[in-house]
Amino acid sequence: MKMEIGHSHVETVTFPQEKVNAFAEVTGDKNPIHIDAEYAAKTQFKKPIVHGIFAMSVFSNILGMRFPGEGTVYLKQEISFKRPIFPDQEYEVSAVVKEINRDRHTAILETKITDKVTGKVNCVGEATIMHETKI
Amino acid sequence: MKMEIGHSHVETVTFPQEKVNAFAEVTGDKNPIHIDAEYAAKTQFKKPIVHGIFAMSVFSNILGMRFPGEGTVYLKQEISFKRPIFPDQEYEVSAVVKEINRDRHTAILETKITDKVTGKVNCVGEATIMHETKI
Repeated sequence: MKMEIGHSHVETVTFPQEKVNAFAEVTGDKNPIHIDAEYAAKTQFKKPIVHGIFAMSVFSNILGMRFPGEGTVYLKQEISFKRPIFPDQEYEVSAVVKEINRDRHTAILETKITDKVTGKVNCVGEATIMHETKI
Repeated sequence: MKMEIGHSHVETVTFPQEKVNAFAEVTGDKNPIHIDAEYAAKTQFKKPIVHGIFAMSVFSNILGMRFPGEGTVYLKQEISFKRPIFPDQEYEVSAVVKEINRDRHTAILETKITDKVTGKVNCVGEATIMHETKI
């Protein structure tokens, strides 16, 4: 099935603290705000926050593996970090198709991470992707 | 020292295949284009490519840890993936200050990843950050 404007994909995700620690290790981004609870307690956030880029990686994951899936080429991503994302909490991640270009096989999707409890938006942006057969 | 327009930071980076594999594990993005050489050989890229988001994570790393460093709050990132980034090759990563807002303590930086050999741009975009004392 080809992607159409309005098609959407929604998942619930959590970012466990141990995965945040592993992400810090792999990327080298060991900013203590992400991995040191004692340090984080003294900041405005009061506790560790998830790397923005780690949060963003859920879109790469969804677009490349499930929606539309294998064969996706990631062309562009824009994201605004509105509110901190905390480890071990549930968030709703959504991708909604906003524009389609059938000639170029490209689509623009709104990508959003929302707090499951408060409904407030944590991150919002747009992904541009290409898929030879599904777009 | 406060950031000024024109200030820049440059590093040479590589994304070893084993770190790409670890990134796939941590984020769950196990698209075979990144981790399966046999699969990748049949694609337009001929060999595995680094996750775009993994490549992007170098900016989070640089901005959060070295330029301007600890205390940086990441507000926004925009990035276009122009050419594939391959594991185990050298790339030049640069961040250049384009705009400063002293009242809000925010800055916009051009963020770029360039092939060290060909000089061609792999990724280019803009980061918006806040730092209470260094901007």
